[in-house]
Formats: sequence, structure tokens, C-alpha cells
Amino acid sequence: MRAEIITIGDELLIGQVVDTNSAWMAERLNEQGIELYQITSVHDDRAHIIAALNEAFSRADLVLTTGGLGPTKDDITKHVLCEYFDTHLIEDAHVRAHIEELYKDRPDVLNRLTATQWMVPANAKILENRVGSAPLMVFHKGNQLLASMPGVPYEMQIAMEEQILPYIKSQITHQKSQILHRTIQVTGIPESALAILLEDYERRMPQSLHLAYLPKDGIIRLRLSSYGEMTERQLQSWLDELKRLTAEYMIAESGDPLEMIVGRILTERRQTISTAESCTGGKLASLLSKHPGSSAFYYGSVISYDNSVKEQLLGVSSELIKTHGVVSEEVVCEMAKSIRRQTKTDYAIATSGIAGPTGGTKEKPVGTVWIAWATPQETTAECFHLGKLREQVTDRACQKALVGLLKRL
Amino acid sequence: MRAEIITIGDELLIGQVVDTNSAWMAERLNEQGIELYQITSVHDDRAHIIAALNEAFSRADLVLTTGGLGPTKDDITKHVLCEYFDTHLIEDAHVRAHIEELYKDRPDVLNRLTATQWMVPANAKILENRVGSAPLMVFHKGNQLLASMPGVPYEMQIAMEEQILPYIKSQITHQKSQILHRTIQVTGIPESALAILLEDYERRMPQSLHLAYLPKDGIIRLRLSSYGEMTERQLQSWLDELKRLTAEYMIAESGDPLEMIVGRILTERRQTISTAESCTGGKLASLLSKHPGSSAFYYGSVISYDNSVKEQLLGVSSELIKTHGVVSEEVVCEMAKSIRRQTKTDYAIATSGIAGPTGGTKEKPVGTVWIAWATPQETTAECFHLGKLREQVTDRACQKALVGLLKRL
Repeated sequence: MRAEIITIGDELLIGQVVDTNSAWMAERLNEQGIELYQITSVHDDRAHIIAALNEAFSRADLVLTTGGLGPTKDDITKHVLCEYFDTHLIEDAHVRAHIEELYKDRPDVLNRLTATQWMVPANAKILENRVGSAPLMVFHKGNQLLASMPGVPYEMQIAMEEQILPYIKSQITHQKSQILHRTIQVTGIPESALAILLEDYERRMPQSLHLAYLPKDGIIRLRLSSYGEMTERQLQSWLDELKRLTAEYMIAESGDPLEMIVGRILTERRQTISTAESCTGGKLASLLSKHPGSSAFYYGSVISYDNSVKEQLLGVSSELIKTHGVVSEEVVCEMAKSIRRQTKTDYAIATSGIAGPTGGTKEKPVGTVWIAWATPQETTAECFHLGKLREQVTDRACQKALVGLLKRL
Repeated sequence: MRAEIITIGDELLIGQVVDTNSAWMAERLNEQGIELYQITSVHDDRAHIIAALNEAFSRADLVLTTGGLGPTKDDITKHVLCEYFDTHLIEDAHVRAHIEELYKDRPDVLNRLTATQWMVPANAKILENRVGSAPLMVFHKGNQLLASMPGVPYEMQIAMEEQILPYIKSQITHQKSQILHRTIQVTGIPESALAILLEDYERRMPQSLHLAYLPKDGIIRLRLSSYGEMTERQLQSWLDELKRLTAEYMIAESGDPLEMIVGRILTERRQTISTAESCTGGKLASLLSKHPGSSAFYYGSVISYDNSVKEQLLGVSSELIKTHGVVSEEVVCEMAKSIRRQTKTDYAIATSGIAGPTGGTKEKPVGTVWIAWATPQETTAECFHLGKLREQVTDRACQKALVGLLKRL
């Protein structure tokens, strides 16, 4: 089964909104063994949407659309789908009851525009949108399917998981091929050197196997994908060989974000961690507290953006800062030790660096970052040079901090 | 001038990577008055890339591609472009010298795969990629243009700003129409009620003017776009009327992120702020320190994910937590007062809530968030119910925190 996604909305094409929906949907489709062939972003424009639908249906069995389902005038998806599937709008009593219940305490929402939301295409299968007013619509076109969802990420995700995917699965009679992905993560080797290391391995790979290199923030994800014939066991043996070949550089045996892997290890061992951040400004804390269950291992952080906070809350002496500079091994080690002691955690990480664009010097140019790790045994630090762009520097620093922690766990 | 973007890479279609490039590029194109018509994401596959190129050139004057330019086997964009533009690869001495200089201290990078990067299509205009090894290529096809860039965001951004956009501008002889966008932000009114409020206004709008509603995290951005004939002055008078009509709900006169607006106001007044975060886990700190220049007004934060940290670093008494619960007006006010006092800032914000998926009770269900604002005058708090999804709750809490601060500034 082959799918395509069409995301509808001017906001995507003027850069006001980043399309995070497609990647999320792509992952869900892949888990189901459905190949996503193409993603197309189009304007809230009748002719444009119809052209995109025609093209997608010429290539795919399943077309998923997001966006353009709000109650306002700029949202036209429902009307265009009516035209495309040659139908008209009718009132849906079930949707109406749901919307009236959803907003029973919100008379300001239950107005005549919201009332247009319970008008649905006569020939569509309507699925329940538990968290919003836009109806989820599925259209059949011979053996092909189209599902239309809201563009608001949270609504789309609930719609996909609870309604759209189960419905699609119920319509698939036999799944001919399966797609399997396995990912590992390596660091400390350039992409090209890694490719040379794996040259013979790649040459021996069968047609149905594919290896991709995904470098990001100093880490390379190696993704092995098998299409069709290959069994899980065969894929596993290829994966095992890949792991052996890259053992020296491998930091994770899955593609999961590093903070998730760290979290699993700490939770399992009933250990805890805290952070003291300067240049990363809360990004590391935000990563470590991102996933459900993080309160089991993550205690907290002091973000000491200003030096006075380093002194006041982390007890780093102004003397030490004056002598070595705030971006130094001495200061970052002191920060790590202090937060570990104050929060009574097993581990602590501290960062201090120059994120830029200003603040660099000849000795410590923009991108210089010191990271310290305090463990039950010792406190050590490393210095990194992480580029010239503010966001790049802080993103990479967080990944370096997690890699260093993984090595010490 | 009409443009399209083609993003190339399997990783986009299996959901391993979110395409942040397109939105960034879209914004840059719009600033130049270039209309972005469509974004298409395709596989690292010869036939697929060629089909997408054909389609894009049938609609647009300018095609921008990202991705597939690495030195590894899965990256095929350069070879496909050679085929498409009927040319072959030749060594480029300038690119070679640049790569050899870039990696002069990295013999591990200067290997035979990296050497393939200085082989470039014979009929392409090669622009300098200051920060990486992949050459930037521009092809002319009659009056049409194609520019190919790496997919790594930082490389792409530098390429666009320093090379591709200036080159494109040099090729445009006369720009016929201009696109102008103006955005304001409102909150505290449902999208449908806002649309009813603006119904008459929208009815009176000329064809060349367009109003879009972009709801996100409890805030609605209203974007007014004019195409073609309209002058800046005419657009301004429509904008002024929009502001008058929505005055009661308006929180910002631009589309800039709220943390940026807050930062500008504080910097101008030479005032400072600190935060104490529980449920938002560093996200608020991360927002406030995101943009260059934030060290002028942002002092730091205590992330008290664990209650012990609230007691130890914020001095919130265990008694108070026991009596009122950690998600309460009393505790969150104490957090805000404590961090403001300790960091000696003018303002402070504190958050405490239940982000979920677990931890909710009947009285305080998942999504309950208390936020406190400490100002030079007083400390006040509000309780919000922000939905059921972890990321939604924390994202919305940050926006509520910033809206509340803006009102108090």
C-alpha cells in the first residue's frame, strides 16, 4: 500500500508554520508497513488542491490531507472535497450532538460559524473528532481512500491514532510487503570516513536492503531499511554486522532520542540527574523533562544565564569566574558539583559556552562550550567547538552533553 | 516570480526528520516578494526526483532543492541533476581548494569520498558553500532557474542568505508584483467568534487582500496579506482597522514570537526577568534565552522538577506543599517571589502544573497549570486548564506565561 500526504494551508507556504505533522504521520504510516511516497504542501486554493488530489491519486492508494477545516472563511478544504467527490453538505446529527456537548459551557464558541462544522459531505464516512469541532472525513474512490484531518497537531494526532489508522487497517485486506527499519547512532567519525568503513558491507547488501546516513548535531544515525522479501531475522543479522563494524563509534542501538535512552537507563537503575546550564539556557532541562515519566529520574536545573545567578544559586565564587573566565573548565566543574550536591542527585551535567552571535574572543571564539559531568566517582569536563550559529551551538552542546553522560553511565 | 521547493530525502518520508528547511526558505522567499507555490518532499530516487522536477518546472520560474548532496551512496541529487540538465561531472579547482582548506586539520575527513564533492556538473554555476563540502549549484533552463543546496539546516541557511538569494536577485530583471504581509496576535476569543466579529470587515476587503486565521497554543495570529496592486499605505489603513476591531483581544502588533516581544520591551526599559519552572521543565527558560541579546534581560531559572528542589533551591516550605499541594496558587506564588528575590530581577514567572499523561486527580486533572507573575508591585497567579497532551500543556503554559507577562509590563 502506498500513501501520500497533502498538507493544505497558506501558512506553510509563507513560512509562518513549520510542518511537523507530516513527519509524525510518516512515522505512523511506516509502523503500519504503509510506504509514504510523497508529501505535498499546497495553498488554500481550490484549483491547487484539486490538482494535488489528482496527482496524488495517480500515484497512491491512500491520500491523507491535513488542514483547511476550521470554521473561518480561509478554510476551504471541506468544500473542495465536496466538489472533488461530487457531493453536497448535509447536517450530521451525531457530529452536532458532539459539538454541542464539547462546548456546552462555552456559548461564545457555539455560534453560527461553529454550526457550519456539523455540515458534512453526504458521501463521506464521518469519524469522531474527540477533541475538536472539525469532522474527520474518509472518502472512497474505487479502491482508493482519502482521509481528511485538521491541521492542528494535537487534533491530528488523536484523529490518526484513534480513528483514521484503525479505519485504514480495517480496509486493507492483504498487506503484500512489509517495511522494516532499524537505526543505530554513532559519533566521533566523519560521515565520509564512516561510508568508507562500510563500503564493503554496502556492496554486499541485497537490493531489498537500504542503508541511509543521517547526520545531525554531531551524531550520525545509520538507518537500515528492508523492503519486501527480507525476514526480521535476516535483517537482524545485517544489523548485527553493522553494529560490529561500527562498535568503536556506536552510542545507541536504536534511533530514539538520546535523552530518552538516558532516561530509560537512569529509571531502570533508580538513579537521578540534575543540570546547571548557562549557554544552553534550559534546552537540556527541556530535553530531559520532555518525555512522560521523566520525573522519575530528572530532578531539576539551575539556569544561570547571568553570572550573578552562578554566584547566588550555584555558589560559584566571583574569584573563580574572574580568574578563569565564565567559560572554563574550572567554572563548569564547579557548577556541576554544586548542582549535584544541592539536589542530591547521582549525576549532574553543567554547560557554559559562547552561543553567539556576539561575545566571542580570539581565545574563546563563538561556539566554544565547556561541558562537565559530575558522577558519584568524579567530575570531569571537556571543551568543544560547535560552530558559529547560535541554535546550532546550543543544540550540539545538548547532544554532546548526553553523549558524554551515556559514556559515563 | 513563482518558486517551488523540492526537499529530497527518504528520512523526510519515514518521519525521521521534520522538514524545518521549507518554512525557513518560504519566509526568505516571501521577504523578497517571491511567491512560494508548492513544497514537495520526495525520496532519494532517480525517477521520483525527475518527475518532481518536471512538475515543478511546469508551474514555477524558480525551483529550489535541498538534500541528497552528501558524500555517501544514498545521496544521489547531484547525479540526477546531471542527467536532468544533460551534463557530466568535472573537477572544480576552486571547490577543491576550498574543501582542502576547510578540512586541512582533519585528514580523517579528507578521504576519497569527500573528494567526490569537488566534482561538479559542467554546465552549472557553482556558488561557494562556506561551511561545508557540498557545492551549491545553480542551473539555467531557458528563463527558469534551479538552485540545489544541502539539507543540513545550518548549511542551507548560510547558502541561501549569502549565495543563492543574492544570485537569484541578480537574475530577476523586473519584479512585477509585491506581496506584503502584516500579522497581529489576539487571545481570549474563540476563532469562530473572532470570524463573526470580523465578518463585515472581511466582506468589504478587496480581492487583492486576504485574511488568514492561525490558531496555536491559545493564541490566534491574524495575517493580512496583500497581493499586487495594493500600496503599503492602503494595507496600513486596513491593518489599523483590524487593530481597532480586535483591540480588546490584541496582545501583539506583529507576528513575532511573544518571547521576542517581551525581550524587546525589557531590553528597552533595562529591566530583567527570571523564571522558576516546574511543569514547563525549562521550556520557558529556553524560549527566553533563544534569541540573540537575551542575556541583556534574562537572568536565569530554577527548574524544580522534583519537590526537593523546590524546597532546597527555592525555599518553598514542605509545609506549604503539604497543605496546598505542589500545583497551587500558594506554591507557585512562593516560587515566583523566591526566584525574583534570589536573582534580584524586576520580574519573575513561575509555573507548576500537571503535564501528564499521569499524575492527574479529580480536583486537579491533567492539564491544570498554575502560573504566577512577580512584579515590582505585586505577585499574582492564575489557574489554567490546557488540555490533555503533555507537549500541548507545556507549550500552552509557556504562551500563557508570556501573555500574562505582557499584560503586566
